[in-house]
Amino acid sequence: MLPSRYDSQTCSIARALELVGERWTLLIIRDVFLGVRRFEDLQRDLGIARNVLASRLDKLTADGILERRRYSDHPPRDEFLLTEQGLDLWPTVVALMQWGDQHRPNPQGPPTVLEHKRCGGAVNAHRICERCGAQLAARDVAAVAGPGAPPNHPMLAQTG
Amino acid sequence: MLPSRYDSQTCSIARALELVGERWTLLIIRDVFLGVRRFEDLQRDLGIARNVLASRLDKLTADGILERRRYSDHPPRDEFLLTEQGLDLWPTVVALMQWGDQHRPNPQGPPTVLEHKRCGGAVNAHRICERCGAQLAARDVAAVAGPGAPPNHPMLAQTG
Repeated sequence: MLPSRYDSQTCSIARALELVGERWTLLIIRDVFLGVRRFEDLQRDLGIARNVLASRLDKLTADGILERRRYSDHPPRDEFLLTEQGLDLWPTVVALMQWGDQHRPNPQGPPTVLEHKRCGGAVNAHRICERCGAQLAARDVAAVAGPGAPPNHPMLAQTG
Repeated sequence: MLPSRYDSQTCSIARALELVGERWTLLIIRDVFLGVRRFEDLQRDLGIARNVLASRLDKLTADGILERRRYSDHPPRDEFLLTEQGLDLWPTVVALMQWGDQHRPNPQGPPTVLEHKRCGGAVNAHRICERCGAQLAARDVAAVAGPGAPPNHPMLAQTG
């Protein structure tokens, strides 16, 4: 095993990766961005072991990237929301998605497409709206199922 | 151990993370962006085991993210350059760096600062030059040692 801390590295990238460089962590964050917020839904979508998911969610909450909110008292059930720090990971998530779309394309087309909520324009590599030119933040953008979305895509499941 | 492939995931982010989600991989790519290209220099800067570094470099080369170039025949020595696919990881690297600078700041200030080569302007969160407004690509931008750079920072070591 390699260490999970990069102590020898005076580097902002290394510090970011200490928090989100664990396997699955960025995929959990992606799901929360897509509106998959409950433990059972995350577990079903990611298909990972419950104990691994629980430990990743605990760490993300302790690190201030997610916050836990109770949505049911009987039985006790929590959901997870992005904090401001978590929302600021949106550029990283978008950059990885755009790289995957470009260099490892899905034969059926992109599974998820981003669009500017206000005008419906596409989001370019600089997170600028291709239609109206606005510099976009996470809250300005909607993720919609693309042509390559599988039947269980979160954006389809939510409307089903 | 978790699987290194996210086969259940029809997702561009998952496909990108299959390639660059391994520990150390994004730090290797960061170093190559900073001009640290030779095996011995990478090993010294990262402080990781030689066999781990060799295996990560082999995989990045096989995946088409780095390419190997011989710079010495006697003794045989190679350096590693970013391919176009590798250069396209620049937005991901910048996004992680900006997140780290903002949310886990180094007390001495940022170790590395990006500036637009042509006008010296700072690079904003959309990779736009704050001085001239240009939308910047990797080749347009220089990384310089910032106030928090350690003495062994690659940009200082190269000019020393």
